[in-house]
Amino acid sequence: MASSASPETPKPKIITGPGGYVLEDVPHLSDYIPDLPVYTNPLQDNPAYSVVKQYFVHVDDTVPQKIVVHKDSPRGVHFRRAGPRQKVYFHSDDVRACIVTCGGLCPGLNTVIREIVCGLYHMYGVKKVLGIDGGYRGFYAKNTVHLDPKVVNDIHKRGGTVLGTSRGGHDTTKIVDSIYDRGINQVYIIGGDGTQRGASVIFEEVRRRGLKVSVVGIPKTIDNDVPVIDRSFGFDTAVEEAQRAINAAHVESESFENGIGLVKLMGRYSGFIAMYATLASRDVDCCLIPESPFYLEGPGGLFEYIERRLKENGHMVLVIAEGAGQELLAEETTQKDASGNKLLQDVALWVSQRIKDHFSKERKMTINLKYIDPTYMIRAVPSNASDNVYCTLLAQSAVHGAMAGYTGYTSGLVNGRQTYIPFYRITEKQNHVVITDRMWARLLSSTNQPSFLHPKDIIEDKVDEEPSTPLLDNGNCTPK
Amino acid sequence: MASSASPETPKPKIITGPGGYVLEDVPHLSDYIPDLPVYTNPLQDNPAYSVVKQYFVHVDDTVPQKIVVHKDSPRGVHFRRAGPRQKVYFHSDDVRACIVTCGGLCPGLNTVIREIVCGLYHMYGVKKVLGIDGGYRGFYAKNTVHLDPKVVNDIHKRGGTVLGTSRGGHDTTKIVDSIYDRGINQVYIIGGDGTQRGASVIFEEVRRRGLKVSVVGIPKTIDNDVPVIDRSFGFDTAVEEAQRAINAAHVESESFENGIGLVKLMGRYSGFIAMYATLASRDVDCCLIPESPFYLEGPGGLFEYIERRLKENGHMVLVIAEGAGQELLAEETTQKDASGNKLLQDVALWVSQRIKDHFSKERKMTINLKYIDPTYMIRAVPSNASDNVYCTLLAQSAVHGAMAGYTGYTSGLVNGRQTYIPFYRITEKQNHVVITDRMWARLLSSTNQPSFLHPKDIIEDKVDEEPSTPLLDNGNCTPK
Amino acid sequence: MASSASPETPKPKIITGPGGYVLEDVPHLSDYIPDLPVYTNPLQDNPAYSVVKQYFVHVDDTVPQKIVVHKDSPRGVHFRRAGPRQKVYFHSDDVRACIVTCGGLCPGLNTVIREIVCGLYHMYGVKKVLGIDGGYRGFYAKNTVHLDPKVVNDIHKRGGTVLGTSRGGHDTTKIVDSIYDRGINQVYIIGGDGTQRGASVIFEEVRRRGLKVSVVGIPKTIDNDVPVIDRSFGFDTAVEEAQRAINAAHVESESFENGIGLVKLMGRYSGFIAMYATLASRDVDCCLIPESPFYLEGPGGLFEYIERRLKENGHMVLVIAEGAGQELLAEETTQKDASGNKLLQDVALWVSQRIKDHFSKERKMTINLKYIDPTYMIRAVPSNASDNVYCTLLAQSAVHGAMAGYTGYTSGLVNGRQTYIPFYRITEKQNHVVITDRMWARLLSSTNQPSFLHPKDIIEDKVDEEPSTPLLDNGNCTPK
Amino acid sequence: MASSASPETPKPKIITGPGGYVLEDVPHLSDYIPDLPVYTNPLQDNPAYSVVKQYFVHVDDTVPQKIVVHKDSPRGVHFRRAGPRQKVYFHSDDVRACIVTCGGLCPGLNTVIREIVCGLYHMYGVKKVLGIDGGYRGFYAKNTVHLDPKVVNDIHKRGGTVLGTSRGGHDTTKIVDSIYDRGINQVYIIGGDGTQRGASVIFEEVRRRGLKVSVVGIPKTIDNDVPVIDRSFGFDTAVEEAQRAINAAHVESESFENGIGLVKLMGRYSGFIAMYATLASRDVDCCLIPESPFYLEGPGGLFEYIERRLKENGHMVLVIAEGAGQELLAEETTQKDASGNKLLQDVALWVSQRIKDHFSKERKMTINLKYIDPTYMIRAVPSNASDNVYCTLLAQSAVHGAMAGYTGYTSGLVNGRQTYIPFYRITEKQNHVVITDRMWARLLSSTNQPSFLHPKDIIEDKVDEEPSTPLLDNGNCTPK
Repeated sequence: MASSASPETPKPKIITGPGGYVLEDVPHLSDYIPDLPVYTNPLQDNPAYSVVKQYFVHVDDTVPQKIVVHKDSPRGVHFRRAGPRQKVYFHSDDVRACIVTCGGLCPGLNTVIREIVCGLYHMYGVKKVLGIDGGYRGFYAKNTVHLDPKVVNDIHKRGGTVLGTSRGGHDTTKIVDSIYDRGINQVYIIGGDGTQRGASVIFEEVRRRGLKVSVVGIPKTIDNDVPVIDRSFGFDTAVEEAQRAINAAHVESESFENGIGLVKLMGRYSGFIAMYATLASRDVDCCLIPESPFYLEGPGGLFEYIERRLKENGHMVLVIAEGAGQELLAEETTQKDASGNKLLQDVALWVSQRIKDHFSKERKMTINLKYIDPTYMIRAVPSNASDNVYCTLLAQSAVHGAMAGYTGYTSGLVNGRQTYIPFYRITEKQNHVVITDRMWARLLSSTNQPSFLHPKDIIEDKVDEEPSTPLLDNGNCTPK
Repeated sequence: MASSASPETPKPKIITGPGGYVLEDVPHLSDYIPDLPVYTNPLQDNPAYSVVKQYFVHVDDTVPQKIVVHKDSPRGVHFRRAGPRQKVYFHSDDVRACIVTCGGLCPGLNTVIREIVCGLYHMYGVKKVLGIDGGYRGFYAKNTVHLDPKVVNDIHKRGGTVLGTSRGGHDTTKIVDSIYDRGINQVYIIGGDGTQRGASVIFEEVRRRGLKVSVVGIPKTIDNDVPVIDRSFGFDTAVEEAQRAINAAHVESESFENGIGLVKLMGRYSGFIAMYATLASRDVDCCLIPESPFYLEGPGGLFEYIERRLKENGHMVLVIAEGAGQELLAEETTQKDASGNKLLQDVALWVSQRIKDHFSKERKMTINLKYIDPTYMIRAVPSNASDNVYCTLLAQSAVHGAMAGYTGYTSGLVNGRQTYIPFYRITEKQNHVVITDRMWARLLSSTNQPSFLHPKDIIEDKVDEEPSTPLLDNGNCTPK
Repeated sequence: MASSASPETPKPKIITGPGGYVLEDVPHLSDYIPDLPVYTNPLQDNPAYSVVKQYFVHVDDTVPQKIVVHKDSPRGVHFRRAGPRQKVYFHSDDVRACIVTCGGLCPGLNTVIREIVCGLYHMYGVKKVLGIDGGYRGFYAKNTVHLDPKVVNDIHKRGGTVLGTSRGGHDTTKIVDSIYDRGINQVYIIGGDGTQRGASVIFEEVRRRGLKVSVVGIPKTIDNDVPVIDRSFGFDTAVEEAQRAINAAHVESESFENGIGLVKLMGRYSGFIAMYATLASRDVDCCLIPESPFYLEGPGGLFEYIERRLKENGHMVLVIAEGAGQELLAEETTQKDASGNKLLQDVALWVSQRIKDHFSKERKMTINLKYIDPTYMIRAVPSNASDNVYCTLLAQSAVHGAMAGYTGYTSGLVNGRQTYIPFYRITEKQNHVVITDRMWARLLSSTNQPSFLHPKDIIEDKVDEEPSTPLLDNGNCTPK
Repeated sequence: MASSASPETPKPKIITGPGGYVLEDVPHLSDYIPDLPVYTNPLQDNPAYSVVKQYFVHVDDTVPQKIVVHKDSPRGVHFRRAGPRQKVYFHSDDVRACIVTCGGLCPGLNTVIREIVCGLYHMYGVKKVLGIDGGYRGFYAKNTVHLDPKVVNDIHKRGGTVLGTSRGGHDTTKIVDSIYDRGINQVYIIGGDGTQRGASVIFEEVRRRGLKVSVVGIPKTIDNDVPVIDRSFGFDTAVEEAQRAINAAHVESESFENGIGLVKLMGRYSGFIAMYATLASRDVDCCLIPESPFYLEGPGGLFEYIERRLKENGHMVLVIAEGAGQELLAEETTQKDASGNKLLQDVALWVSQRIKDHFSKERKMTINLKYIDPTYMIRAVPSNASDNVYCTLLAQSAVHGAMAGYTGYTSGLVNGRQTYIPFYRITEKQNHVVITDRMWARLLSSTNQPSFLHPKDIIEDKVDEEPSTPLLDNGNCTPK
């Protein structure tokens, strides 16, 4: 289990057991550094924990990925359960941790930062925690931010990230140099799928160099497009905050003749926010997401449906995820000249214009369309109570794992349990709304919108469609 | 409508399988009524569902109760997965459903009512749905409320219950007579543990009489004290709303010398709201719950801790669940005369008074204690987005089960999946915060409050302590 | 005081008194209809009012327009005080009132509608109130909505207008025909300056025809651009709601390097919302309004200021009223070709683009600009408590005036008192932020933004500048 | 620093003019200190103000107290208009200001503190501002808090007061000693009527000693019981926040048979919050305030009214100001023995108990009464946008006055204009709801509650009843 000359791409650690049990385990510092000293977990002397018999996670605890099972189902893939271990691989005084936030804003970032700092400090007595300023590129900068419980005390009540963030700026060699030069041995990386891929190569480089550095990912994606995990932090808050925009669209549409309220919500490749916001509201007549292609004209198209709703009801509300209908848009825009290109990349604006043109020019109907884009107002709110608790557990799990010597993992909630997931499972694909699944059927049923699909399309699509991960029961049993 | 010689107390339906698999199944109308006609599920012709290949739940789908497992764990108890079945046991035109809400208010009641009505109507074409007015005793009243999608359209935006509610008033014979007389064949009963026990005996009487009536429970408990299920609807909203009171207590306490903000939260026997509200807030210095006995005086007691916090910090915030310290209170009040009895039954008021007395009389310290009881302000808010989605799924699951001929079950979320749980599992005991478990340790760690316990007490208590159900990872693996 | 053959444009009713007292009175039905019967006000028998000695407004009560005075100031213009009169000119059974809402949405519309209906019903026993559907053009439609206290009971908790609204659609002859044909004798018209001008010509036509119809305006303008009155209803709510967008812009800007948060707020010709939202927030670095011209390039320009703030602070927040910088935009757009015309009419988008171009191309600086347009989310919220009370008083004042036989007036708050203002004063000009006045100086002082002005410009501008109306002390004394 | 023979109790400064004009002026440092140096206002060099022609307040600007006037009314009492003067009596470098907050919490305290600090700093270049810790008694303590714009930057987003507060603790000699010893020459005192009385005697002692110290009061009273001024800061926020409790009471009462929701609101001697919260809500059936005596039993009593509302409507909502019915309570409690005394002093609890007893024992009716006391949740919220702007203007006005050498005044809004009011007008009496006035009639009309009064009582009471101050038109013209 030796050597700092490890292979370029480390192999997955797979452990199997009876009944088809599979554990997709995460790397450990001892995988590539021999003879690491081991310490007693200082939590054993913490008065809060000393009375808790069941506090430490059993070394064999794992959580299955699929839990809708049959009497004779194989047991399938499991992940290692997160939580404190009896033994740790760092002495508290030796830990030098850093935290970095990358990508767009998401409610809860500050809570995660706060709880990593407080978790390290209060649970493990770790006093040296650095904040990297402004995303990955902050690793190259001279300045870092000192973090301690006092500094982070109230930050969870504010939106955004106190560390600052940015996109891109990832140069693995320079980052690992910086980690090494500063003597950092625990790296907490909060960000979306691109960021997690970055974390993965940082981990590989760290491993290649044989450094005793735990590299830990915490998945941040307001779109909920990270696979495997139940839901991403901030998602709940985002769906809640989206209700304001939908309510406004509803009021505007009701107050004008043939009023149409159109709300753009986040979701570049995954329509989860749009879908859940629609289900939570009950005022939405149509929800368009990237996963479900749609068309505007002709029978079964959007225009026909809008016209019907306006006739029946006098008004309607549309929700469009930002990534919906990109194929349609690409097709249209190549047919046209390139001048209006920039404007047209915003699908919601483009659909707005098409709806206006269709009804004013072709149908000679007066419509009153109001377009609302609440994106930044949603991203920037502080996390709600539910996300606060979730962020706390996520951060603490991340800390327990690093202290226990695990590395190269993302901390994530699987079927309601905190787990450690190997990076490759997080980065190999995106989580999508499965439109042949029940949650989407529930949405169709609640809005009564057309499916924009032909039944035969489905059957064929279906063959190698993966079931989505569960978010309040969206899962499926697909026994062979 | 005859009986197939049903036993007085029906036996649990237990099905076992390989690897220690156990299914605790729910009753079915065909268990005691032979030769029931079976129909094709009308959802097959619903455009929203017709394209969804995986829409119908496989007849063998089940969900395990415990999912933190080891490689060689026995598979343990499972519940039947909720959802639409290919075959239904009611013809839509024949269904005559009723809905009743019992007990105290809880955010989401109106959403559940709305979604049962809309689910029956839109998914199954059921048009006859009655609302029973004012709880169980409404069954004896002449008047019922006609419910259809139009009537319930906006009710989810309001707190409370449009059907009215009450406590008690349960006379099984009269209720079943009323069900029979009105020709009702699906009964949806929304309420807490007492109500679910009521539902259980109604089911048994219905079964005894051999009636083709599905009796369905939907667990409502703002305290989260219903066992087996992940969390009860409205809980999330309640924790969110409790933040206002905690924030106010924090502001009041910070603005006065030796300021103490004391917030009473719901939780007669279970301290979940208090615990989660404390974890979400981060401004609470001490959280007292029914499950964790405490004492006021002497070393390690509450007074000592308060004094220390006031010295360190100048102010403090206490959260007390309404059922905390009842033993202490009972003990005290028998030592005193009976005159002030009524007042003293409110533990938070009693603790307030004891704190004031202790510091003014014994310690000669000026303190400024502000007592806040937000109970009714929390109960009465409309459900938030997250609870709205949850209530929708819960209601739809309940409807699918009844249409499929299941009866005598509670619809509930287990490990993030909608399931059908036999009544006896819901009513046999209450869900409690396990204070030897990790979630409570997290709380102790975040507040730094004393545990009020001696380590040796724990070890012994622990022997037959049941692990709690999971709410964002509170569970344990207890392999034998 | 004669004749139904009144002159085309009725003359203002001006009454003068000692000390320079001037009353700009409102028309009365008896001005052009002789021998109208007079009735005792039914409020005298209302138990709520019978004990109130001072309930009825004295016939001579008036309110001065300017109240910052000197020892020897002339008394100046006054308006008739609103409120119930001892005598009324309508018998309750004979009243047939109608209500119409015109123009864009504004918080409080439903409260005004509710309180006109409830005021007529509860105070005067008037039972016949019609809602005109969808603005002025609803007068031509067959359908109207019957309004009574039960119908309007909960509407004040919803945004928008239950009557529907539209812009334009004003044909005086057809409207007065419709009023006459339906037997309507009290017309309540809720709308902005265009709508009030419409009301004015309806009044003149009614008067020309000699009809006993009171025409009453209620000024609605979320921009606060109606002159004379203190503030328009909904303004307070709008400023409150705008804080969300500003907070989001602040969070976004703080979290990114050189972050710029840009919020567009309502205000086509008047920057009141932008100014008050800026003053209320304290997070805004620059506020641009229509009344204060600005320029982008060169010393003292916007770009220079932005660059300075980014250097000092790392981020900044801009608020732009929708009508700001139109001259600048017009100038720019004629220099360019017409293709991008449509996009460029949105000044906030245009400024966003110019800022991006300037910093990326000319200054080679990376900036992160986030643009937020919360317009529809602000307009559509229900009115807050303060606006609810205000709308109630406004509606009741309108009703008292019509019952007392006044007509051709707008009901409005002047120096904190409800008054009746002749139409011509409301429609002759718009209310603007006076940028040489103190409130704007306060804003400049709080943001530290450049004035974009040369001192000498001011002195000359100032000569015939009218002082603005007061909104928490914005007024001036300009004695000759 | 000598005295110019000032009298023990300084006489009011009254200036009269033509037409019955009276100015009740405020003291000035030059009244008792001869030959004070005068400086040019540094605002003249401030870029924000330099372009504002009308920025400085004219030395003769005054604002009338009564503005509902007749053609031949006498002009009556006026107050000096607040605002910056051309000349100031302090050199910025010499100013040493202090701020103290006293009494209970009120939304907006932190905004007032922030704006005094920022106003002194940004407008006048004053850098030495001290915060006195914990109310008047903080003057004796050694520690004070240094305040500058950076320290106070975000405090307006938090409830409470960052300076801490307390009741009482007023020893004039020690306070003035402390002021003198610390070299303080501007004292800003934020508090209610007791606090303003304290400020008044501090001013008198300062004057007696001949010190060049401006003593400035800023009236803080969530109850709005300070006379003369239009409304106190935080009042608007409090009325808004009270809506939550009323909504909860409404939901609770609607959901239970014979449900009664009872909300206690602030208002020891003045029922303004209860009255405005009731008018804003429209869900309240009865509002009880200190100014309007009521009785429980017999015809026209509360019990009768409750029973009628329950019969008509099935539920009802009561709002009780904390000081309502104290006579009734005193009477009852002397008739009984003293044991339950403490409990009974809370009138809302006492009324709750009496209602329960009456209906269960005498009327044998089941009622469901829910009691809500949101007091601390209302007091502790941050101020809303409207109060933020108001607090800013109030604080800036206070600062301008002190810089201009005025002293012994309270800064306050009169008829929408910032003014300086001599202390004796603020402290001589309390502001009350005048129940024979129109605003109370509006409330009676909206709730339909009984007046609890006999018409003949009114006429007699009325003789020497003072008209109340205006809050959105509550005033009256009482010409002789």
